[in-house]
Amino acid sequence: MTAGTTISAARIAPDSPEIGQLLHSFVSELYPICRSITGNGLRETLRRIGERIPVQIHEVPTGTQVYDWTVPREWNIRDAWVKNSRGERVIDFQRSNLHVVNYSIPVRKTLSLRELKEHLHSLPDYPDRIPYRTSYYRETWGFCVGQRDLDGLPEDDYEAVINSSLADGHLSYGELLVPGESSEEILISAHCCHPSLCNDNLSGVAVACFLAQTLASQTCRYSYRFLFIPGTIGSITWLSRNEHVVPLIKHGLVLACVGDRGGFSYKKSRRGDAEIDRAVQHLLKHSSAPYKVREFSPYGYDERQYCSPGFNLPVGCLNRTPHGEFSEYHTSADNLDFVSADALAGTFRKCLEIFDLLERNHCYLNLNPKCEPQLGKRGLYRELGGQSDAQIREMAILWVLNLSDGQNSLLDVAERSGLRFDVIHQAAASLERHGLLTPARNQEEL
Amino acid sequence: MTAGTTISAARIAPDSPEIGQLLHSFVSELYPICRSITGNGLRETLRRIGERIPVQIHEVPTGTQVYDWTVPREWNIRDAWVKNSRGERVIDFQRSNLHVVNYSIPVRKTLSLRELKEHLHSLPDYPDRIPYRTSYYRETWGFCVGQRDLDGLPEDDYEAVINSSLADGHLSYGELLVPGESSEEILISAHCCHPSLCNDNLSGVAVACFLAQTLASQTCRYSYRFLFIPGTIGSITWLSRNEHVVPLIKHGLVLACVGDRGGFSYKKSRRGDAEIDRAVQHLLKHSSAPYKVREFSPYGYDERQYCSPGFNLPVGCLNRTPHGEFSEYHTSADNLDFVSADALAGTFRKCLEIFDLLERNHCYLNLNPKCEPQLGKRGLYRELGGQSDAQIREMAILWVLNLSDGQNSLLDVAERSGLRFDVIHQAAASLERHGLLTPARNQEEL
Amino acid sequence: MTAGTTISAARIAPDSPEIGQLLHSFVSELYPICRSITGNGLRETLRRIGERIPVQIHEVPTGTQVYDWTVPREWNIRDAWVKNSRGERVIDFQRSNLHVVNYSIPVRKTLSLRELKEHLHSLPDYPDRIPYRTSYYRETWGFCVGQRDLDGLPEDDYEAVINSSLADGHLSYGELLVPGESSEEILISAHCCHPSLCNDNLSGVAVACFLAQTLASQTCRYSYRFLFIPGTIGSITWLSRNEHVVPLIKHGLVLACVGDRGGFSYKKSRRGDAEIDRAVQHLLKHSSAPYKVREFSPYGYDERQYCSPGFNLPVGCLNRTPHGEFSEYHTSADNLDFVSADALAGTFRKCLEIFDLLERNHCYLNLNPKCEPQLGKRGLYRELGGQSDAQIREMAILWVLNLSDGQNSLLDVAERSGLRFDVIHQAAASLERHGLLTPARNQEEL
Repeated sequence: MTAGTTISAARIAPDSPEIGQLLHSFVSELYPICRSITGNGLRETLRRIGERIPVQIHEVPTGTQVYDWTVPREWNIRDAWVKNSRGERVIDFQRSNLHVVNYSIPVRKTLSLRELKEHLHSLPDYPDRIPYRTSYYRETWGFCVGQRDLDGLPEDDYEAVINSSLADGHLSYGELLVPGESSEEILISAHCCHPSLCNDNLSGVAVACFLAQTLASQTCRYSYRFLFIPGTIGSITWLSRNEHVVPLIKHGLVLACVGDRGGFSYKKSRRGDAEIDRAVQHLLKHSSAPYKVREFSPYGYDERQYCSPGFNLPVGCLNRTPHGEFSEYHTSADNLDFVSADALAGTFRKCLEIFDLLERNHCYLNLNPKCEPQLGKRGLYRELGGQSDAQIREMAILWVLNLSDGQNSLLDVAERSGLRFDVIHQAAASLERHGLLTPARNQEEL
Repeated sequence: MTAGTTISAARIAPDSPEIGQLLHSFVSELYPICRSITGNGLRETLRRIGERIPVQIHEVPTGTQVYDWTVPREWNIRDAWVKNSRGERVIDFQRSNLHVVNYSIPVRKTLSLRELKEHLHSLPDYPDRIPYRTSYYRETWGFCVGQRDLDGLPEDDYEAVINSSLADGHLSYGELLVPGESSEEILISAHCCHPSLCNDNLSGVAVACFLAQTLASQTCRYSYRFLFIPGTIGSITWLSRNEHVVPLIKHGLVLACVGDRGGFSYKKSRRGDAEIDRAVQHLLKHSSAPYKVREFSPYGYDERQYCSPGFNLPVGCLNRTPHGEFSEYHTSADNLDFVSADALAGTFRKCLEIFDLLERNHCYLNLNPKCEPQLGKRGLYRELGGQSDAQIREMAILWVLNLSDGQNSLLDVAERSGLRFDVIHQAAASLERHGLLTPARNQEEL
Repeated sequence: MTAGTTISAARIAPDSPEIGQLLHSFVSELYPICRSITGNGLRETLRRIGERIPVQIHEVPTGTQVYDWTVPREWNIRDAWVKNSRGERVIDFQRSNLHVVNYSIPVRKTLSLRELKEHLHSLPDYPDRIPYRTSYYRETWGFCVGQRDLDGLPEDDYEAVINSSLADGHLSYGELLVPGESSEEILISAHCCHPSLCNDNLSGVAVACFLAQTLASQTCRYSYRFLFIPGTIGSITWLSRNEHVVPLIKHGLVLACVGDRGGFSYKKSRRGDAEIDRAVQHLLKHSSAPYKVREFSPYGYDERQYCSPGFNLPVGCLNRTPHGEFSEYHTSADNLDFVSADALAGTFRKCLEIFDLLERNHCYLNLNPKCEPQLGKRGLYRELGGQSDAQIREMAILWVLNLSDGQNSLLDVAERSGLRFDVIHQAAASLERHGLLTPARNQEEL
């Protein structure tokens, strides 16, 4: 377990126009590293995150039992190639780490074209793309190539070399708790186990890292726990080591595929009506951009583990275009061009909006519950009708007063009134300032 | 507190064809009076109501604290005008009481056209209409005029005179309890604080008055409480003085804008599924006329106060065209032509239908709950198929028997069966006569 | 009470292609018998059923009180005719037993054409069809004829003879309990009180009989109770004599009009969301054929009695075309041509599917509820993506694991996942074999 660096002094302003470029730069920095679910690529990625935020890097030994799973042997790779009989590298790990099936065992063999082809993977429908393939739990080896390159291979004797190792070691993951006023937590989880793939893995990593940086500079009601983990085995490992933390998690988001140019897609938690589900839907509905909301299903990213029946945590998954709905998914086309600075910045800001809503979502008590209070004498009532902004503000005030019986949160008020949470929250703040509203005690028990 | 006159001996038959004309006549009688939220116009209106029903007139002194509000000073006006330099009244309160901003403080001033215009209100979009303006809680003065007349005013020296008084006095309101067999009450509330405006204020007043007259001549299960009150401050004042009555109110209707030629519009109570909400919707759905049902919002008439969270009473609001959806609203065009005898009579009858449903809505127990009783031997089953009326009657009997387990009211049966409440009620009455059905005990606790 | 014959050794394989022909043959065998709600026609029908399954035939004496009803006198008929003055039978019971109003009292009279017509029933819209009429509880007599034949009757002296008897005797019904592992029961009820009508009555009788035969040869979790009863009075009689059995009935189906060529129509139980309601809807939804689901109404077949409020049993009604929606209903056109072997076989198989679902619908507990278990090491996870069947199987496994918290039945899982019950059940069976899932204890109490 090693501590990360301290937080960068020059923090990023969330509304800075350059935030998108900074996010994209960080994706670019991490792009060449050959990550996997264990090993030095993952470790190097966590070290780079640690240069920005004080993430703790945990190392869990091979063989550790984590629920039904066992931490696998650590995989490392130095080089790999297929050479033709003239000694030319016709497939070269140095050109793209996607060329090697992730977790390939070491190999050094000479093969005929036919024998070689049994170890080659390609995408006939996308002849220029290298597919991304893994074999974590079954020992094998292989190369991934563009179909066009594959088709161009003549009969020859080929030397296939994978200079990898699969040996006892550790599974690494990064964790950062940004403490808030309350011990109650919001969990943000990003997987970082894919090699050179941008939308699927690096987009979530970069956005999560920048969110941590921003939140650390603010005073928050909630504590925020950031996890940078290998998919599946990472969340399982974290959960198995942190059951005492689970009851503190009040909301959570898995971030994945959040850098492409598509609109937002939100997948609900298993609960389906958790506060995080309603918060995200509210914000997406009141944005002007197209979006999709999907019901929970037990297939996807690490929400599968957080939402397993033994935990049933209120954790949703935020995407732009979901996996399986873009052809670049798990191919070399999920590259630096496929993710955009604007999209990354938009996701970063949407997450801050979501957290902001959760931070401010309280139940209140109307202190003058019998009839309306006289708003006019407090300057809360426009004296001459007219401006529609003023009308909306006034409606928000009336809705907050009417529904603040201690049972309705501001999000409830926003949903029932059809008004934006922001407007409702401003109304509540104004009423609280005027002594007409007070936070409901024990609201967490409601 | 003064007692009203005794009830008119010549009561009106609810289905009399002349009921519409009588209602319109009463609106005409009240039309010229310059009402406000306090003062002699309001008092005179209550006196006229008192000539028809034994309404009690309550006088609440200026300065009385009513929850967050204070009963304001009493406003009275004798005359008001703007004269040009030739001594001609170019704006004249005697021609329309809408010409003066309601609650204007006394004034006597000579002004240039420019200075005068700062105190004039008009409607550019409707140049022939005088707008209706008030300033109850901010001391000011002003005149309301047609845009066309305003545009015709030449440069001149104008004398503006408002012969009004704003002084300690009383807020007046009228109240009548028509006692029923039970102390449980249905509340009917109409505001009567607007000067010469017919749909908005007088339509509700007239219908409520006639309903009281009709119900007083009947034997009812419920007691009916009628309130004739200035808007907002009136309901707040009544509630603050009658908290002991509140638990008795089982259903309620605010009547406003019920005289225009539009279809019915019903705004649900804050509860949204109160018996009154379901009863009105059932009747509107089974009428052949178009109608609208709107969700509760904390903006509108006195249901705002009855439905404030400290009371949350099951009080809805019945309108024809709702405020804000007709351009005549709060202008001189909301006049005697805008309300029709037929519409007033239709509202009157719809209210009686609503009360009738509530009166007859009970939970029953099927006394032969195991299998159907043999209807044929009791003459409850048509012996030869055929007439569709008989089929409907028979279906109603089967539905009442099937659902009368003490948990379902007749309205529940009507809703689930899709049949009219009347048909369901007749079936229940018939079954009760044959000893097959009995009212469920303690049904109010269900 | 007489015991039926023992079960046929040569049982029918449910998926045999000849099942439809066998069902239709049984309908043909029963078709000529003149059944009524009592009497030898009903008794003979039960005897023929008894040749196939060991049905118990119960005989309940005339005058027995059954709840609000009394078992009527037994009706038997030997012959009936209308002869013209030349002694020719112009209406002849021997040609169709529908010609006589069912439960007609004995008569022997000579009448003019005008007098005769008062006792004739016909269908002007369907001049070639004989209508089916009954008069169980009012003593009368009559004949039913085609409108065309009626119109052809000349003025004459007619002799009307009905050689029937209405005398103290018994009401007969058949009952068979096919015992299962549990004492909990599924009720299958078919009426058998109509004379020569195929879809309405014989289709249900034949399907129920064959279901009993098939289920008796299987090992079932549930016990299955088959009732072959006269409509209304039969179910009332059975319920009044078997109140101790009622709590054991967990699901039930009334079978009626299940032999015509229309798609399935299912009428929900009074509960509306009983397991049987959801099971049938699930199977109909996932079939490729058109179907209809109707809400409960207290009009129809014996579900009226089973769903009366004193029992409120989870009993639905399965039809193809419901009564009232086909013009052949209750006419001589509901004959052997109107029901098809394929339709009868389809209903038979659909019922088995329904029972099969209910048999297999359990709540399970995921024994590895914290995170997903490692499916790969158990061979439960496809190693190479691809086949869509494998993907569906895998999704089913993930859904079962995710929702098996002891609260969700497999049908709940199927409904939420959108997958077929069969696929979900296979997944559960596979997980149970691998020790990852166990039936929830006390699941019946959940």
